[in-house]
Amino acid sequence: MRLSRYFLPLIKELPTDAAIASHRYMLRAGLIRQNAAGIYSWLPLGRRVLGKIEQIVREEQNRAGAVEMLMPTIQSADLWRETGRYEAYGPEMLRITDRHGRHMLYGPTNEDMITDIFRSCVHSYKGLPQMLYHIQWKFRDERRPRFGVMRGREFLMKDAYSFDLTREEARRSYNRQFIAYLNTFARLGLKAVPMRADTGPIGGDLSHEFIILAGTGESEVFCHADLVEMPAPGHVDFDGDLQPLVDARTALYAATDDMYDADEFAKIPQDRRLSARGIEVGHIFYFGDKYSAPMAAAVMDGDGRPVHVKMGSYGIGVSRLVGGIIEASHDDDGIVWPKTVAPFGAGIINLKVGDEQTDKVSRDIYDRLAVAGIDPLYDDTDDRGGVKFSRMDLIGLPYTVTVGPRGLGDGVVEVKTRATGDRQSLPPGAAIRFITGEFA
Amino acid sequence: MRLSRYFLPLIKELPTDAAIASHRYMLRAGLIRQNAAGIYSWLPLGRRVLGKIEQIVREEQNRAGAVEMLMPTIQSADLWRETGRYEAYGPEMLRITDRHGRHMLYGPTNEDMITDIFRSCVHSYKGLPQMLYHIQWKFRDERRPRFGVMRGREFLMKDAYSFDLTREEARRSYNRQFIAYLNTFARLGLKAVPMRADTGPIGGDLSHEFIILAGTGESEVFCHADLVEMPAPGHVDFDGDLQPLVDARTALYAATDDMYDADEFAKIPQDRRLSARGIEVGHIFYFGDKYSAPMAAAVMDGDGRPVHVKMGSYGIGVSRLVGGIIEASHDDDGIVWPKTVAPFGAGIINLKVGDEQTDKVSRDIYDRLAVAGIDPLYDDTDDRGGVKFSRMDLIGLPYTVTVGPRGLGDGVVEVKTRATGDRQSLPPGAAIRFITGEFA
Repeated sequence: MRLSRYFLPLIKELPTDAAIASHRYMLRAGLIRQNAAGIYSWLPLGRRVLGKIEQIVREEQNRAGAVEMLMPTIQSADLWRETGRYEAYGPEMLRITDRHGRHMLYGPTNEDMITDIFRSCVHSYKGLPQMLYHIQWKFRDERRPRFGVMRGREFLMKDAYSFDLTREEARRSYNRQFIAYLNTFARLGLKAVPMRADTGPIGGDLSHEFIILAGTGESEVFCHADLVEMPAPGHVDFDGDLQPLVDARTALYAATDDMYDADEFAKIPQDRRLSARGIEVGHIFYFGDKYSAPMAAAVMDGDGRPVHVKMGSYGIGVSRLVGGIIEASHDDDGIVWPKTVAPFGAGIINLKVGDEQTDKVSRDIYDRLAVAGIDPLYDDTDDRGGVKFSRMDLIGLPYTVTVGPRGLGDGVVEVKTRATGDRQSLPPGAAIRFITGEFA
Repeated sequence: MRLSRYFLPLIKELPTDAAIASHRYMLRAGLIRQNAAGIYSWLPLGRRVLGKIEQIVREEQNRAGAVEMLMPTIQSADLWRETGRYEAYGPEMLRITDRHGRHMLYGPTNEDMITDIFRSCVHSYKGLPQMLYHIQWKFRDERRPRFGVMRGREFLMKDAYSFDLTREEARRSYNRQFIAYLNTFARLGLKAVPMRADTGPIGGDLSHEFIILAGTGESEVFCHADLVEMPAPGHVDFDGDLQPLVDARTALYAATDDMYDADEFAKIPQDRRLSARGIEVGHIFYFGDKYSAPMAAAVMDGDGRPVHVKMGSYGIGVSRLVGGIIEASHDDDGIVWPKTVAPFGAGIINLKVGDEQTDKVSRDIYDRLAVAGIDPLYDDTDDRGGVKFSRMDLIGLPYTVTVGPRGLGDGVVEVKTRATGDRQSLPPGAAIRFITGEFA
């Protein structure tokens, strides 16, 4: 993409309520623009990051055997009355009346609707197990939206739902999502720790939050340091027994501040006790027949007896992750994107646009990085060099190639690695090989 | 995908209001499920088709130089009051009051919001031209939703918006979208004809509808037959002069019934007069400063004088296209998907699941088609052969390979081409080469 044809409005004056780094940088770097309290437009740079996160989440869901579908944003209140949640949910539910006076709502979650779909389609144990997910916008009418996309009102979420005949089989579905989450967050460049969680209004008796560590996180977390260092499981056989992999990660102590137990924490060897700031980016629940019983979602088992299916639900805050990643990865100059979610793989700065040689070399590097799939952003504007450098630092692309007449006199361009600040002077071909090698 | 692990609920009892082929087949083949009047869930098979259409639309928008972003579904009423549309829009707008009593709405379109974003970000002619698009769910509270996704209430739309300094430059943006639309619909396997259109409530003085021809279409269209046979422009230089390409397609007569002029139609040579049924799948508008003037979206021109930007908007009904494609391409047995949007490229029917040889050959064909990127659906269920055949016909995959013990005795499998009904007996390797060749 040529910057001169892109829409990248950077802003300098920040609203006073931009209290955290991700909110400030997302506004300054032109990733989002607020349209109303807690409601944002994703400008092109932000849209790219959001799309990359969404795609990684999707790939890991598919790998775990979940099947993608898509439920609508607007739901009928009738379904929520069946489970008693329409009355119970409180003012965070955006309630809507349509032109015919029917009560509708903007879905804050989808347990009720997916249970309705399931009960109308599956009637036999032979149709089990099922694990379905969608990635869709949700709305929660927060009393006081804040922290940008971290606590917005309209937000993008992946939510998956599992249906099994028995609690034991449901546990296998739970484990599949548990492992998929570890792989997902690792691919996003995050260190995520699963922590036993309160089940809250969704209910049920088995639940984990996935917390990423970030110095500016919203809550304090306490855990065994080994949990942070443990690598993600990677490509495992999702049909196999995942319990040992899960057990290895739940045997060690980990808790958010609301579940914190000082005595348990003290049992961790002192040099392995980690207390840090964290951000919740995923939450998984097993809740058995909490919805299938009131909604009569039953299948016939092998003996012809009706059994309420055992369900779980599994959420990832996709739009929240954009903020979460920035909280975990930024410095004083701006965002430092992990390679997997960077809006562009590399930037190219032409220091003398209009100069035959810098134009030619810049365009050549652009073409070759594009062919290699790096998806470069070429700063071909006539802004000053200082403006170009600080803009690239702010938007946080992993690598920047700077092409100037002085360097080209020596046959070199400069490659800067954003995360480390390292700068190398390399001939153009070597610069391309270095960057493509980093993405290999 | 193995069918035994997929979620493909076919239904037999249709609601009485399923009056058109696409609605019936989308329900029967398990593409959608109605959640409320005019509001649908996209089941896995439907989600796949929707995603493929969305991606083709996206690629052709990008090729035309449009830049993707994403605006939220919920908008503040304040913006719509600035243009007077909040009062003017009528009961199709879903009006919402949030917990603080603020007036919001579920966006039926985005001219007001994008103009607000533009005016806050771009202040100089140097920031022009701009062409931004998003693919997002919209809501129109139709009095009587019908025809399934063809006239739903919650629907997915691509809407693009262009901003130019002069009317002449805006015409170039209009032409870019005009050509992009022809390419988009051609890639979707559709014959689309641009027709001069009434500008309706969006206003403006230049507008075309894109109508696909389908025997079961909603309205009658009248045009020169050459328009239907004219190939899509394909990969043109979008920076070049597109006017001749546009002129070639607007010089010939074409009109929907509400714009029909019998005298003009009669001027077409008799053997080239075509009257047919059509479905609107796209609509493009030039409307100048209709929104930029009331919203004060102005840039400084080269002489430092403020100029209201000249705007256009460009819509494609992405979810509607799923229905439109089925209307244009089905038979008595079911859907006949064009290759580019088929949910799976090919089906594999194993006639004797559990038989060592049919299992082995089926799995081998599955693996080799998957590696070739055909994305096969493998029917590994224990249903009867007749059930499997009619299901494959109903869901309309372009090719089906049937693997049975009798054929394997002769060393062959059967390949059926859905669109023609042709059947060939081929050795497995030749069957794979035939199918991959068709997708090359």
